[in-house]
Amino acid sequence: MTAAYDDQNIFAKILRGEIPCHKVHEDEQTLAFMDIMPIVDGHCLVIPKAPARNIFDVGPESLATLVKAAQLVSKAACKAFGADGHVLRLHSEAAGGQEVFHIHFHVLPMKTGVPVRPRAMADHALLAEHAGLIRAAF
Amino acid sequence: MTAAYDDQNIFAKILRGEIPCHKVHEDEQTLAFMDIMPIVDGHCLVIPKAPARNIFDVGPESLATLVKAAQLVSKAACKAFGADGHVLRLHSEAAGGQEVFHIHFHVLPMKTGVPVRPRAMADHALLAEHAGLIRAAF
Repeated sequence: MTAAYDDQNIFAKILRGEIPCHKVHEDEQTLAFMDIMPIVDGHCLVIPKAPARNIFDVGPESLATLVKAAQLVSKAACKAFGADGHVLRLHSEAAGGQEVFHIHFHVLPMKTGVPVRPRAMADHALLAEHAGLIRAAF
Repeated sequence: MTAAYDDQNIFAKILRGEIPCHKVHEDEQTLAFMDIMPIVDGHCLVIPKAPARNIFDVGPESLATLVKAAQLVSKAACKAFGADGHVLRLHSEAAGGQEVFHIHFHVLPMKTGVPVRPRAMADHALLAEHAGLIRAAF
């Protein structure tokens, strides 16, 4: 789990503004945006702006900053979607289910009786609407 | 997600020493021990010593302290079990899959090609052995 950071990953491109995202929150050190393959409504991702591949490649203070941002985003996303439960997930390396190799927390607002869906590309107009709902809930 | 903290939950009893656990790490503010229903070998839990029900019931600094402890435990557990991947999970409320209502991170050392198992009570001698392996990897 010591592979190098590849700055051509999709989140690095989002951070450089080379490709767009449906932003829900930003501060000096972190960025949050909608997952384009949401497994629940309101599924968003929280990433550090500094390059780091996974939980083993990030310093403790950076990880702490990231989880605090994830907590804020979680509160807003759960409020926006009327969630009665929540899951926070961090996957590292392919064996851990990581798909993009820039560390990211998954924020999942959950509702009783609503299971997660298989990953599938969402409609961008809908993602833009959901991002707006979450931004308004901060 | 504003339900009160119930100090009769099983982790509160572990913290008070009323029931045992297979400890892997402890510091002033956190405790880590084996999950008794592991879904992978080395599955452990990291909890704060202070009472808190879920991600919405814990202050940002306490959450930051908890994730830093979880990172340390993750490193040791992955080293102990030769993992090539890792998952960190935090479930809040029943709708989010939370089963014990004292906030806890799940630490999951993952191996390529080894899927998670259904939750089932593990043999205590085996859990004690696994806890020893993780403690030795710090």
